[in-house]
Amino acid sequence: MQIKNLAEVAEQEPIPGFHAKFVHSANVTVSYWDVKAGAVLPEHAHPHEQISNILAGEFELVVDGESCVLTANSVAVIPPEAKHSGRALTACRIIDVFYPVREDYRERE
Amino acid sequence: MQIKNLAEVAEQEPIPGFHAKFVHSANVTVSYWDVKAGAVLPEHAHPHEQISNILAGEFELVVDGESCVLTANSVAVIPPEAKHSGRALTACRIIDVFYPVREDYRERE
Repeated sequence: MQIKNLAEVAEQEPIPGFHAKFVHSANVTVSYWDVKAGAVLPEHAHPHEQISNILAGEFELVVDGESCVLTANSVAVIPPEAKHSGRALTACRIIDVFYPVREDYRERE
Repeated sequence: MQIKNLAEVAEQEPIPGFHAKFVHSANVTVSYWDVKAGAVLPEHAHPHEQISNILAGEFELVVDGESCVLTANSVAVIPPEAKHSGRALTACRIIDVFYPVREDYRERE
């Protein structure tokens, strides 16, 4: 078993305004985001499945041209290779789950 | 893209005191638990990786004979087939991530 206290995990800011901590298992990456109000997620895509869980705040998400506003208790399932972008309408707390592991994030640690 | 509002997802209680909602992607199951204080998780094992994210409360977790108390900001990575059990020392909110999909939970829906 591996136990982590997120308070002791180093923070990254891979995108301006998007502060993240990451935990990786053998197959999955979980990321814990504190997003500043107004921060912009540029359009991108990746081969990973993504499940975005909004814990607090309002986040405008655009996936393959379809827009929605996510709020606390919203869960978005983003398919592999879907183009997505977004904007934090307020400060947000978000937990993202990726399958498979985000090796690009793991390599930064 | 699939968007869910957890307020509209049916709740299950697969173990007494463990109230859950589930969202499944192609490869991953995410479960959102409200656990009553004192609820007991009987020892069990499954072939899925599990990442347990404690959002609130205190949960005593035992994995392969190793015990720890998880609190807010704790993340536990439980390997496939590891025997685990536990007890909610207080009411808890927990998000679990499973890989692969928990077909046993999906079949109940």
